[in-house]
Amino acid sequence: ASVDKADAKAALKPSVNIGGRLFFDSALFSQNQASFAQVGDAENATKLRWAWIELKGSMLENVDYRFWVDVSNNVNILDAYLDFHDLPYFQNFRIGHFFEPFSMQQLTPNKYLTFMERSSPFNLGRDLGLMLHSDNANANWTYGAGLFMNEDSARPPFYQNDEDSLAVTGRFTCLPWYDEASDGRGLIHLGLGGSYRHLADQTLRFRNRPDAALAPYIVDTGNFAADNYSLIGLEAAYAYGSFIMQTEYHRAAADTLSFGNEYFDHYYIQASYVLTGENRAYNRRSGSFSNRIVPYENFFRVRTEDGRICRGRGAWEIAYRYAHDDLNSDNILGGRDYRHLFSLNWYLSPYTRAMFEYNYTNTDDTTASNGLLHVFQMRMQFEF
Amino acid sequence: ASVDKADAKAALKPSVNIGGRLFFDSALFSQNQASFAQVGDAENATKLRWAWIELKGSMLENVDYRFWVDVSNNVNILDAYLDFHDLPYFQNFRIGHFFEPFSMQQLTPNKYLTFMERSSPFNLGRDLGLMLHSDNANANWTYGAGLFMNEDSARPPFYQNDEDSLAVTGRFTCLPWYDEASDGRGLIHLGLGGSYRHLADQTLRFRNRPDAALAPYIVDTGNFAADNYSLIGLEAAYAYGSFIMQTEYHRAAADTLSFGNEYFDHYYIQASYVLTGENRAYNRRSGSFSNRIVPYENFFRVRTEDGRICRGRGAWEIAYRYAHDDLNSDNILGGRDYRHLFSLNWYLSPYTRAMFEYNYTNTDDTTASNGLLHVFQMRMQFEF
Amino acid sequence: ASVDKADAKAALKPSVNIGGRLFFDSALFSQNQASFAQVGDAENATKLRWAWIELKGSMLENVDYRFWVDVSNNVNILDAYLDFHDLPYFQNFRIGHFFEPFSMQQLTPNKYLTFMERSSPFNLGRDLGLMLHSDNANANWTYGAGLFMNEDSARPPFYQNDEDSLAVTGRFTCLPWYDEASDGRGLIHLGLGGSYRHLADQTLRFRNRPDAALAPYIVDTGNFAADNYSLIGLEAAYAYGSFIMQTEYHRAAADTLSFGNEYFDHYYIQASYVLTGENRAYNRRSGSFSNRIVPYENFFRVRTEDGRICRGRGAWEIAYRYAHDDLNSDNILGGRDYRHLFSLNWYLSPYTRAMFEYNYTNTDDTTASNGLLHVFQMRMQFEF
Repeated sequence: ASVDKADAKAALKPSVNIGGRLFFDSALFSQNQASFAQVGDAENATKLRWAWIELKGSMLENVDYRFWVDVSNNVNILDAYLDFHDLPYFQNFRIGHFFEPFSMQQLTPNKYLTFMERSSPFNLGRDLGLMLHSDNANANWTYGAGLFMNEDSARPPFYQNDEDSLAVTGRFTCLPWYDEASDGRGLIHLGLGGSYRHLADQTLRFRNRPDAALAPYIVDTGNFAADNYSLIGLEAAYAYGSFIMQTEYHRAAADTLSFGNEYFDHYYIQASYVLTGENRAYNRRSGSFSNRIVPYENFFRVRTEDGRICRGRGAWEIAYRYAHDDLNSDNILGGRDYRHLFSLNWYLSPYTRAMFEYNYTNTDDTTASNGLLHVFQMRMQFEF
Repeated sequence: ASVDKADAKAALKPSVNIGGRLFFDSALFSQNQASFAQVGDAENATKLRWAWIELKGSMLENVDYRFWVDVSNNVNILDAYLDFHDLPYFQNFRIGHFFEPFSMQQLTPNKYLTFMERSSPFNLGRDLGLMLHSDNANANWTYGAGLFMNEDSARPPFYQNDEDSLAVTGRFTCLPWYDEASDGRGLIHLGLGGSYRHLADQTLRFRNRPDAALAPYIVDTGNFAADNYSLIGLEAAYAYGSFIMQTEYHRAAADTLSFGNEYFDHYYIQASYVLTGENRAYNRRSGSFSNRIVPYENFFRVRTEDGRICRGRGAWEIAYRYAHDDLNSDNILGGRDYRHLFSLNWYLSPYTRAMFEYNYTNTDDTTASNGLLHVFQMRMQFEF
Repeated sequence: ASVDKADAKAALKPSVNIGGRLFFDSALFSQNQASFAQVGDAENATKLRWAWIELKGSMLENVDYRFWVDVSNNVNILDAYLDFHDLPYFQNFRIGHFFEPFSMQQLTPNKYLTFMERSSPFNLGRDLGLMLHSDNANANWTYGAGLFMNEDSARPPFYQNDEDSLAVTGRFTCLPWYDEASDGRGLIHLGLGGSYRHLADQTLRFRNRPDAALAPYIVDTGNFAADNYSLIGLEAAYAYGSFIMQTEYHRAAADTLSFGNEYFDHYYIQASYVLTGENRAYNRRSGSFSNRIVPYENFFRVRTEDGRICRGRGAWEIAYRYAHDDLNSDNILGGRDYRHLFSLNWYLSPYTRAMFEYNYTNTDDTTASNGLLHVFQMRMQFEF
């Protein structure tokens, strides 16, 4: 009987899987005088960009959890949540600290991003909250809708204020075309997201870097007084074999205290092609290209016993992005930029990637026009 | 032979088990004018209360180790110790950073506490030290006695001072009645603890929150000069099926530099009842109710294939606590409070718990009388 | 087919092993007046010296990774790298954050060190970089050569400066004699290392503690202006059964801005003997004594069923080190010290060690002569 009890106990016990990821970045910068006047000296840098320890598991077949921390610079809590599955009507309920359901780019894990960094100044990051969401690997649509604490996601997950700072955020995506026969090597994705966000401290700020974590902010509204703001996001993507085209448009409407509504915009459009024929697979559960590229042939280069050098090439991908930030509204002048990114990604194995990127950024702000910032950046990325 | 060697080596290798816990808290506060004058504005809050990563294992059958860290706000070392078993005379020897052996409530892991927080302002927390202790799952008594560095446990485990800051702490518990037939569904527990603590920096302070981590301190002696202080603790508990009653009394005697001995008190009494019939099991190794409640039926709510909604209810527990702090001594006026707590605990599974609590606190201090602070707090707790 | 796919996927997945180490230190100090004038009061201390969480694994048979963090005081990144094996010509390529290839003592893991701390003020620690290196368990030589960012290794791995701060570091070791028959219980080791290090901020400082992490710095040049500096290191070791003798000489040549080249020195010589007959095994892959001592008989002390007390003694080792720092150059007066260390190490099991050390240090600097600092220190060390 006690054996049965132990068995029963073991069956209930949550499973634990441990993993992690390590990203090493290097960046070289070149600026013209106007850029120097705008942002100061962009100094070359090398950094351990991310060092994540990831715990996750499941319990009783209908509860998943995730507990991820980044230790690259002290400890930052990333995902820390419980997910309850198989619920009637809503499918899934999630509670904890996690990404708000907004923007295809935001919801693509950083290890699967086509470029080294996300492009939008309006990404919401992770917040404490509750979310209902779908999670179906065979559906042609996804949804997520939640209630969040609008905390600053850079700090530990902690919000204390008598004024509420609630956010309501939702996203809906669908697949007008999905080629089942080829497991999604052909598809069209459309998405719509929105968020309404009350600001307890009546302070708001938008800013952005040129798709490079080691670069300075190039556009920045500074702090301004606002009661709340709203976001809307549109998404579209087209995949055909090794080719993907993807675009998003974000618009923020800030309910300012001094000027009434002020509007800010961002969009990007990007295309990528895997030269070696593999494809970046779409994930129907999350409504994004959140699956690894598995090279047909992993990279290796070894001397065989008979003295020859033998090699495998891995997978190679090229990509281009055009992005634009407009943080100038009628009365708030945060600046405007447009950016061209050229990327070469080398997948040594499904878990190892080297990235080489050149970013050309042209910024206009109240200080100067045509500030040119050139970024050459590299990443070595590993996941386990 | 090399295989045998590898086997032998593997047999010696310490095992490693990984686990963790995540607690999410929300608290709403309401105050009268007197409370506002006493403690300022108690602001509503939401927080990742705990995020623990837990490593533990054993070696050679007679050594256990534990290495636990909390990463909810930077990194804090929790348990980090080695435990040597099967010793003659003393049973066990522990070295490292761990809870001093004092107070049943202190020694009950936070995941098994009946209420969200412990109640005593005199709990000792974890310190660097050595301890002899029993560890017998079939005995009707436990003991623990150790020598500790009286560090401030909130900092990393580090003590540096030429003045010694040693503490001697011990606890003894026994079970005058224990119903073996029902595996301890009926029992009476008695306990006695004490500690003598030298203060290297001759500074002492007692303070307490109203059993709510997100609330401000309501009683506080401030720093005062003392050479050492002593603690004494009395414990009693009675369990009968799903019903538990538990009480503790703590008395601190501070050897102050200005006034001679000054005395401070705390006690609580609490009762809990599991409505669904399960029981909170007593742990004979630690002398406390440190075992999980295993619901007869886990919570679920799913739509079955024939369209009906099917559910399991989990386990439900109600609890009440009365607690009192008296931090007013003859010459030091830290304030006095009494508190009523009402709690509803829902065990969705053995590893998942939702807690709902209402705390009523009445505080008198030198600023004002009858400061009323109402706390409504919730917790979602998960362990893996 | 999908099963095959899953199998193939699993075969590619990196493995994960989790481990860690916990070191608890206590130190008592005694000083004469001259030492007090030199370094102030060396206060007694107890500390959790190290608390490491270690993740490592391999992928595709030719890639290893390591991701180690210390959480004893916030989080510090230790090893975080990828290692590619089986390369033609070079054998191995490593990228990430790891020890620069310099000094036998530096490259011996702290858990295997004969004394509690390393002795040289010129150790380089871990830096971001690239390295080619050998990794052959049957060779009679090793090499390592790399390019590094000369960051301050105490901070998170991050370097940002337009001035380059590159370092080129290399090490070569060989075994003129290695007794294969006894698996290396007899050997002679010779080694040579060097590093050239450009200083972006033109600031340099050398300093050292008396082989005790809890003691103050006893010699210290303070910051001085320099463009670059070079290091050279010589190593020799002799092992015969349980006896090991090991010595290293380090010389630093700083290209100062004010005085031209200035030279600083360090050397140590140490001997150890395992009284119980085991031996500290040499590691031919890393060119150092980086293997655990496996006691013939683990320590235990238990009462048997017939009432007798039964015991095992573990392994016992005695060691002596003489070390000398000369941080006085022609124009920079950082002080000079010589140190005698006496150590008794008790290996309770291959994974548990208690260390007892007495250090006698005599320091001369510009403040006083013959500053005597006595250190009595103990460590309890555990690894899993």
